[in-house]
Amino acid sequence: MSIDGRPPAPLMSNPRADRVRDVAKLAGRPARLKTGRFVAEGPQSVREALLSHRADIESGGTGVVLEVFATDACLDRLPELAELAADVPLRRATDEVIGAMATTISPQGIVAVCRIAEYDLDDVLSSGAQLIAVMCEVRDPGNAGTILRAADSAGADAVVLTASSVDIHNPKAVRSTAGSLFHLPVVTGVDFDFLMSAFRAHGLTVLAADGYGNVDLDRLQDESAFRRLAPQQAQADDDEGAAAPGSSQPRLENPTAWLFGNEAQGLSDGQLADADYRVAVPVYGRAESLNVGTAATVCLYASARAQNR
Amino acid sequence: MSIDGRPPAPLMSNPRADRVRDVAKLAGRPARLKTGRFVAEGPQSVREALLSHRADIESGGTGVVLEVFATDACLDRLPELAELAADVPLRRATDEVIGAMATTISPQGIVAVCRIAEYDLDDVLSSGAQLIAVMCEVRDPGNAGTILRAADSAGADAVVLTASSVDIHNPKAVRSTAGSLFHLPVVTGVDFDFLMSAFRAHGLTVLAADGYGNVDLDRLQDESAFRRLAPQQAQADDDEGAAAPGSSQPRLENPTAWLFGNEAQGLSDGQLADADYRVAVPVYGRAESLNVGTAATVCLYASARAQNR
Repeated sequence: MSIDGRPPAPLMSNPRADRVRDVAKLAGRPARLKTGRFVAEGPQSVREALLSHRADIESGGTGVVLEVFATDACLDRLPELAELAADVPLRRATDEVIGAMATTISPQGIVAVCRIAEYDLDDVLSSGAQLIAVMCEVRDPGNAGTILRAADSAGADAVVLTASSVDIHNPKAVRSTAGSLFHLPVVTGVDFDFLMSAFRAHGLTVLAADGYGNVDLDRLQDESAFRRLAPQQAQADDDEGAAAPGSSQPRLENPTAWLFGNEAQGLSDGQLADADYRVAVPVYGRAESLNVGTAATVCLYASARAQNR
Repeated sequence: MSIDGRPPAPLMSNPRADRVRDVAKLAGRPARLKTGRFVAEGPQSVREALLSHRADIESGGTGVVLEVFATDACLDRLPELAELAADVPLRRATDEVIGAMATTISPQGIVAVCRIAEYDLDDVLSSGAQLIAVMCEVRDPGNAGTILRAADSAGADAVVLTASSVDIHNPKAVRSTAGSLFHLPVVTGVDFDFLMSAFRAHGLTVLAADGYGNVDLDRLQDESAFRRLAPQQAQADDDEGAAAPGSSQPRLENPTAWLFGNEAQGLSDGQLADADYRVAVPVYGRAESLNVGTAATVCLYASARAQNR
């Protein structure tokens, strides 16, 4: 008997049961598209999902977690997860059942079925977004997860994935975000041209991260730091027109959308032409190029510092 | 007949041959330790290995590449690789043989057996190192590769892995470095205490990257930028003793060794106590913490900028 007098929930023990298979199927894109659901695996992801669920409910939303499945051993080890899941259906299951639902070898006894949150780009931009990370045809789920996590760390207001990017709700991508997927609005499947018009309409500067870019990120950071640290001198220089005519450079402290491209090809010529500036992250050593996750980290942190977030 | 009149090298076609197995065994640590060899897989890694080999030979060394195995299709597609391999034994092999030697599903027709280069810490430090990245018990090969690649991009003089870190010559780590493994000295298996004494003897400041650190990386970057961008004002502030007494802070432009810890536990209390300063990378958003690869990128780039590398 459980404390409220009802019999304890039955233990799910058949890894071949239909409802187990239904969860396992969410590892595939067709099932995710059809149901609008995805799976978060492991204690860290599930905890962030439940925290986000609670925050959403408290602000009048319908929440993001539909169902949690966990082993008794997991709930004994991490009682705070059971507490967090108080207002969510929580099913007891065996290790075999959890294993059959998950794609990781060791999901550590817990998975959550979550609703794919849909965000509207205009809503996100209308709420005064200052920093947005855009993935244009980023294909590797690990890279997408790293960029999303970096965007979260840098305090970005939203992450956007264009239509031909990896599905951020695939299990490997979800895992790579380490919970950050539940921290900020993620807008997916956006058409590139529509995105550019929306950014312009909302006054964001669009910076393309491009290894061959003609604007040096270090220079932008120095200029921004100078304005911040020696404002009077910067103003005096401005008034004197110290900057050469026509040498307009973006200001990192202004509202900014960063574009990050495909890991092999980078951004396309068309995408580069549509951006306001093409900004290169300097490579000081002999590395040929930066991993897109590393480049995104450096760019987003540069903006975050300049915006004094 | 080949152009020099010798018969063309025979095609290796037996994936179960002893010499194929000997290469495949290098995926395991025991074989690497016993032979002092490791495998680079795929065109990018092999190309960087061959470039490094050539540079080493030209400066009087014995080179790093012992043998290259490739399919005819790969050499037809990438003739510059055959050219680069001119002074290295190059064996023709079938796709099956390359597949049996490699750990990747798709090694794209080429692998190289390389010598594990051994660098002496004192040699590295004596040559005036300004920026060193140290991995202390970093366990994931992908993270180790990302950090090494970030160190290369930031122009670090060397990377050090302490004795209980992942083996950087394991196939997944080699792959993650995207060739950067061949760009800068990598010192492995170093005892932590010995490392700290060596850093002090050579006058390097030791900064521990620590989420709970009491020194803010942004503040260090601002102070360094101020000294660089407004040197007269910075000097005047210094002369006036504007800094509060006792508030000594590290200067990012000074020779620096950064310590990066284990992905789950971070640096140990003992390691943190041995560092000169504990520096936190700010988290602006809701992310709980930074991935160690992301944190290392931000720290190493902050030093690189301050040192104006």
